[in-house]
Amino acid sequence: MAAIVGAGMIRFGKFPDRYIEDMGAEACLNALEHAGMGHKEIQAAFVGNVGQPPNAGQRILDEIGLSGIPTFNHENACGSSSAAFRDAFVAVSSGLFDRVLVVGAEHMSRRIKGLIPIEDGTNIQFDMGLVMPSVFALMGMRHMAEYGTTREQFARISVKNHRHGALNPYAQYQKELTLEEVLQSPMIADPITLLQCTPIGDGASAVVLTSDREAGRYTTKPVYVRASVFTAGRYKKGTGAATIESCVRAARQAYETAGIGPDDLDVIELHDCFTVHELIATEDLGLCPKGEGGRLVDEGATALGGRIPVNPSGGLLSKGHPLGATGVAQIVELVWQLRGECGKRQVPGARVALAHNGGGIGPGLEPAAMSITILSR
Amino acid sequence: MAAIVGAGMIRFGKFPDRYIEDMGAEACLNALEHAGMGHKEIQAAFVGNVGQPPNAGQRILDEIGLSGIPTFNHENACGSSSAAFRDAFVAVSSGLFDRVLVVGAEHMSRRIKGLIPIEDGTNIQFDMGLVMPSVFALMGMRHMAEYGTTREQFARISVKNHRHGALNPYAQYQKELTLEEVLQSPMIADPITLLQCTPIGDGASAVVLTSDREAGRYTTKPVYVRASVFTAGRYKKGTGAATIESCVRAARQAYETAGIGPDDLDVIELHDCFTVHELIATEDLGLCPKGEGGRLVDEGATALGGRIPVNPSGGLLSKGHPLGATGVAQIVELVWQLRGECGKRQVPGARVALAHNGGGIGPGLEPAAMSITILSR
Repeated sequence: MAAIVGAGMIRFGKFPDRYIEDMGAEACLNALEHAGMGHKEIQAAFVGNVGQPPNAGQRILDEIGLSGIPTFNHENACGSSSAAFRDAFVAVSSGLFDRVLVVGAEHMSRRIKGLIPIEDGTNIQFDMGLVMPSVFALMGMRHMAEYGTTREQFARISVKNHRHGALNPYAQYQKELTLEEVLQSPMIADPITLLQCTPIGDGASAVVLTSDREAGRYTTKPVYVRASVFTAGRYKKGTGAATIESCVRAARQAYETAGIGPDDLDVIELHDCFTVHELIATEDLGLCPKGEGGRLVDEGATALGGRIPVNPSGGLLSKGHPLGATGVAQIVELVWQLRGECGKRQVPGARVALAHNGGGIGPGLEPAAMSITILSR
Repeated sequence: MAAIVGAGMIRFGKFPDRYIEDMGAEACLNALEHAGMGHKEIQAAFVGNVGQPPNAGQRILDEIGLSGIPTFNHENACGSSSAAFRDAFVAVSSGLFDRVLVVGAEHMSRRIKGLIPIEDGTNIQFDMGLVMPSVFALMGMRHMAEYGTTREQFARISVKNHRHGALNPYAQYQKELTLEEVLQSPMIADPITLLQCTPIGDGASAVVLTSDREAGRYTTKPVYVRASVFTAGRYKKGTGAATIESCVRAARQAYETAGIGPDDLDVIELHDCFTVHELIATEDLGLCPKGEGGRLVDEGATALGGRIPVNPSGGLLSKGHPLGATGVAQIVELVWQLRGECGKRQVPGARVALAHNGGGIGPGLEPAAMSITILSR
């Protein structure tokens, strides 16, 4: 087992003058301060990022005066820092290390406008135009056809997450949106409009993970890792286009490992790269039966104050999505939620939390990486 | 503990028409065939590469019909697949998985001519011209000044490794060189001439790693992982410019873990990105006292037939160095050596082997990543 004793991030946004190194370092220092731990106590680092020059983790550590420790750089598209978290969890819970940093960091705004560029020849589906928003648009259309889900239901997810983000000082966008604004923003790939897409941004996040026995040295409020599942999409076998099989499978495994079910969850951070993904993931995580994701939105169950708040941070849509930083940033938010440190966006009395993070496009248009983490006080 | 039950690679070379996916897949199939294992038995994959588009590991696995398993992509510059090997070793020896693939793959020849391009702003030392050959040239000069090492001694390492490579059907260059040819090739950074630099190339490598108890199901000749140390360079503290502190430290830790010393080694694959690196590493690994690396070369101790053969495969200089493929390719060669499967370049009766792999430039111009692996029959 392992516990998180410190969590920190920087506000996500567009910072053309910053670099991954200084953003990552600031997030590390915030997490170490939160843990009350000196940087020299750290024994290893697991760092997620996408497409930065080599050894980004080592360069980040340089900036906090930390050298000479094992430093692993993980890439798994939007799930990069969740992959880092997973390997860190295995290393700590196997007894190899007692105190490690897990870091996510990404700088996108200097390099990317609009779609994430993917080199031709990498994926014939991308070359044909089946880029990220198109994939989720197709799933959304299928969901509409099968279950009568409406454009308004998708759009309301963006309204909700921006309402949450407006309460989060770490969010890239702290501005509420109306349903009309979301629906009338430019159409990207029907039913997904511009304001239902996660923005381009920069940011960094970090947590300090310790063995159970070390946790008590640093905090009276450790957050325990109850399950950490990391897997990949697989060739579909008739599970249908309106569900993400790797999410269903990973969630089932995580619930089993943690010995809980979806009803035991108090708060969720979820990979809402597009509104369609949030709607489908709420079903695949078992928060409601398949096809009822739209009703869940209409009922406000996933809003702050609802039965099971989803993305109180604002999610990827409002808090932002600097690819490599996202997985650990979800965990940062949940650690703060479980410690009751979230101010206006706090889910009262949260005790059990789940983070859901996907990465890339794999076989059958399933995510190449799928991570589910369950945390508890 | 863990054991390697299969090892495979493709011949390194320049393959402008190939992609990382099909090269990686071929190496995986070779390793699986060597193990007598079906691909569906694999439970997870750890894949090293540098600077490819996201999720390279998943795309490689796609090509052998393997999906739905945890797939970790590791980046650590020239030490990328050694980082993957290290995390795979931790996952297997902690009991998490029984059968995993560790893969290294890289395509460079379409993108790179000459120096590896590093984006300006990544490293002020690179921006100032302190690129890879320059760093090792400075170390070589210092070694010459401190110990009287000669240009001929450095050059003889390239002659030796090309003589070895000429015996290796997997080597990019299978051609012997004379001392004169090496010395008279164009000067890159004194004392390093062109034929003392590792070439640009493409390739892939893979091993099947299993738990101890599973190994016997697949082979009567398992190769055991006796130590796997992965660390990073640290700020220098007067250790001097003619030694690589992270290598000394990692080797010491590896010998201690394995319960052996350098005298117990029968064969070594070592990171000879430049001849200077091989000479210094032979000292830092304890094969001879500091300053006597040149004499070791002159005596032929590190040549096939000598006291402790280094780089029987031809090393990076002759076998080639497709960055992400290198770490696992070293392990492939050593597995074959320990099983007596190396034909003309076989080190007779080899029982204990060491792989040494560095990656990137970290603090104080030390490697950002340093990996030492000890294997035995």
